[in-house]
Amino acid sequence: MTLPLIRLLPGRDRRVKAGHPWAFSNEIAMTPAAKALPAGSVVRLEGDDGVKHGVWHFNPRSLIAARLLDRDPGARFDEALIRRRLEDAAALRARLGLGLHHRLVHAEADGLPGLVIDRYGDAFALQANTAGMESATPMIVSALADLFAPRVIVARNDSPVRALEGLDQHTRLLHGTDATARVEEGGLAFAVDLLAGQKTGWFHDQRENRARVAALAPGATVLDAFCHTGGFGLAAARAGASAVTLLDRSEPALALAAATARAHGLADRVSCVREDAMEGMARRAAEGRRFDIVVADPPAFAKARKDVPAALRAYQKLARLAASLVSRGGILFLASCSHHIEPGAFAEAVAQGLWRARREARLLWSGGAGPDHPVHPMLPESAYLKALLFALA
Amino acid sequence: MTLPLIRLLPGRDRRVKAGHPWAFSNEIAMTPAAKALPAGSVVRLEGDDGVKHGVWHFNPRSLIAARLLDRDPGARFDEALIRRRLEDAAALRARLGLGLHHRLVHAEADGLPGLVIDRYGDAFALQANTAGMESATPMIVSALADLFAPRVIVARNDSPVRALEGLDQHTRLLHGTDATARVEEGGLAFAVDLLAGQKTGWFHDQRENRARVAALAPGATVLDAFCHTGGFGLAAARAGASAVTLLDRSEPALALAAATARAHGLADRVSCVREDAMEGMARRAAEGRRFDIVVADPPAFAKARKDVPAALRAYQKLARLAASLVSRGGILFLASCSHHIEPGAFAEAVAQGLWRARREARLLWSGGAGPDHPVHPMLPESAYLKALLFALA
Repeated sequence: MTLPLIRLLPGRDRRVKAGHPWAFSNEIAMTPAAKALPAGSVVRLEGDDGVKHGVWHFNPRSLIAARLLDRDPGARFDEALIRRRLEDAAALRARLGLGLHHRLVHAEADGLPGLVIDRYGDAFALQANTAGMESATPMIVSALADLFAPRVIVARNDSPVRALEGLDQHTRLLHGTDATARVEEGGLAFAVDLLAGQKTGWFHDQRENRARVAALAPGATVLDAFCHTGGFGLAAARAGASAVTLLDRSEPALALAAATARAHGLADRVSCVREDAMEGMARRAAEGRRFDIVVADPPAFAKARKDVPAALRAYQKLARLAASLVSRGGILFLASCSHHIEPGAFAEAVAQGLWRARREARLLWSGGAGPDHPVHPMLPESAYLKALLFALA
Repeated sequence: MTLPLIRLLPGRDRRVKAGHPWAFSNEIAMTPAAKALPAGSVVRLEGDDGVKHGVWHFNPRSLIAARLLDRDPGARFDEALIRRRLEDAAALRARLGLGLHHRLVHAEADGLPGLVIDRYGDAFALQANTAGMESATPMIVSALADLFAPRVIVARNDSPVRALEGLDQHTRLLHGTDATARVEEGGLAFAVDLLAGQKTGWFHDQRENRARVAALAPGATVLDAFCHTGGFGLAAARAGASAVTLLDRSEPALALAAATARAHGLADRVSCVREDAMEGMARRAAEGRRFDIVVADPPAFAKARKDVPAALRAYQKLARLAASLVSRGGILFLASCSHHIEPGAFAEAVAQGLWRARREARLLWSGGAGPDHPVHPMLPESAYLKALLFALA
């Protein structure tokens, strides 16, 4: 069976020829035949000069109209290929010493554009963010079942980015019956709600950052604002923090955090407070409360490009509030997972917030997600997580 | 004794008011009295509106004319203040678990603008990169002697940046008689030549990156290009690399690397090759040689802003050559310590080099120096080190 052929426009093949794994809709000859292809079709892509660029996913109604699957023009995008990509991805995580709890597939960088898979031991959460990966989901589930004998696989197809591909939002069981799981990290087992938690239920991307903060936590008082299910705060408690305050407005997330604290004998040093995190920080700052370590890892403030100015003001305010809660000589950890906020702009907003709080600070570490969130070299903008660790005077 | 008063120009106080720790020459009222002050004078800085900005180092002949010492207008820049800053800096490194081998002072971020101090146990190497810190060197040496009972202190005042402050280049003993030292890192003790090695004789900034590469090294063949005294390659050998090739054109650096290898019983797995690293890589690539891990950590390709375009081409070539030497499924580590090369531009040049080598790659980690190289929040550009760790298909 020959795959449909899609052509790049004359003079519009520069990026693809330079190795970029995406072709935009204005780079493609949108013939009636191309426009008639179902969203998510597997196609061959060629330049108008006849250069063969391999096999791609194609969606005539998406700005990112084509995504590279394989540079070999003779490749077949079938379950065997998906299986090889999953094996590669798992082998890399094993080599990185990441055990069985990690992001198993991080889209383009793992050769599966638009697909995210988070693994929690025998539980897997999928995000299919393109029409191509939506169509391929049965093959993906079958390959996962073959390779890892999973207890449960869920679809977390509730990301708003799916709208760009004309896809609806839903979450559902794809395999198995019990959508609860536990993620093991840093000697703790956290309860995860696969179907109803934020994103896929857990944020593997902060694993190394939680360890970084925990290493500074022995004997410290800690505030974990926007704590979700308590990743940072409970890691700090386990590392020997003297008292940890977990702050979040989500009752179910706090209930999971409290359960994890109890299960590990940490409940006597951990307070779970249900409150809007910004308001909770402002109130404590006004009361003159101080913590040796403050962590603030909020949900994305900028959901779209138009939100950027307001989001930068909000990050500045966050930094000011959080800094004002840090004891003399204490530690401040701030993060942004807003895709639309550039690392430099985030760092600048935070620097201004620190200055408004009149706190001298040393930036000890600036970085992002762990190595199970690899980045395609041509897609540096897909490194969405920005984390800053400061020592305050 | 009242300090001389320097004023900011009307309408030119915005940056200083926003907390920036530098004032540029075109922001300052360069009166005859100001111009007549000796380079490196300690002054009070005020706005034309009378707002007091504290105590600064001043050099009327430098583009960065004033550097913040203390925001308290009544502060005295004396040995007691330097001592407090050194104590703070040492306490932070202790809290970070960095033992006695680290960058003790990283300039502005540690409250001592223009001053760098690297520590190797009982040996200290100073860089005074401003006229102010040049003048303060006797107080700094005295404070170090008081706090740390050093065996030796050297001045590594051979950085070209000193010319911007009208300072000469020299290296000399400031305290003690024996300018050799050993740096302990990752279970190895490396010989350091305090007076004649590159920079201060060792690169503490890559400590965490060496550990990152070493963690992937068990059983691997490793090429360490631009190896200097063998930091990356010997860490990999100690971690269990099966064979390590150290490549550098400096005979003295390789001699120290070989001595370290012998002292730790690693000599049978380590080859020291004296050769220009770029030529050595090109030759091996042409011969079809492959390594499981390739490290290329060259000296700065861009010494000045005008060098940037040529340096980016050189980084692209470096990435292409290095990638072509990596085995299927292997690891590539690339770094740039060029202050003038932006992180994004470096990553882009490297991505192009990978593509020219036709190697698909996952960026596992992107970062910089360790936490003993803190960054002032208002000086993000002082984070000079850029490091990229890839897994290649």
